[in-house]
Amino acid sequence: MTDLRETGLVLNPKYDAAGLVTAVATDATTGEVLMIAHMNAEALARTIAEGEAVFWSRSRGALWKKGETSGNTLRVVEMRVDCDQDAVWLRVEAAGPACHTGARSCFYRRIKGDGLVRAE
Amino acid sequence: MTDLRETGLVLNPKYDAAGLVTAVATDATTGEVLMIAHMNAEALARTIAEGEAVFWSRSRGALWKKGETSGNTLRVVEMRVDCDQDAVWLRVEAAGPACHTGARSCFYRRIKGDGLVRAE
Repeated sequence: MTDLRETGLVLNPKYDAAGLVTAVATDATTGEVLMIAHMNAEALARTIAEGEAVFWSRSRGALWKKGETSGNTLRVVEMRVDCDQDAVWLRVEAAGPACHTGARSCFYRRIKGDGLVRAE
Repeated sequence: MTDLRETGLVLNPKYDAAGLVTAVATDATTGEVLMIAHMNAEALARTIAEGEAVFWSRSRGALWKKGETSGNTLRVVEMRVDCDQDAVWLRVEAAGPACHTGARSCFYRRIKGDGLVRAE
């Protein structure tokens, strides 16, 4: 059976039980993974319409326009969807640090053996 | 209050209610996002120990050594964890197509307006 969600050209996100898809944002220039977050249908629609990343905050249970208070927006250069449409990939230009810790990327530590080391 | 999970150098994954963290795999050379999947504690431990990606298949409810049947393994070049340790980033060398559809990456379609276009 052909799975139209995988082969077709219709955006038909497969939301999970909580109504979310996974979103990964990478730096459009360097390819560095900046952050992983989630989107509900409204966050996805707003991201497409506004050209800047809008997520769903699971901890706060609310829409979250990235950079709305910090100014550290993520401008979308390209957006892709994966085979089964339960994840989106945003190639972005970051206006500032993507991580709330002030790091450029949330992934600032490498896994080494049983522990972690700073990546930068 | 200092959050040791964010600032420390101890690997202490924050598993969700299903016992999983999100894992994103990128091509170590090109930076392309190849796939997004999930890991439970055993998948994470095996990935670290074996140097090749092992995931947890939510659909099959089983450990899933990527490429075990297809040969399309993902050799881990570097592994990182994000600020709150609920996601890992694997920079990998892919032995073949990462996607079960035969595509190099699962993200083979761009979102354009309301629809999708092939990215390659």
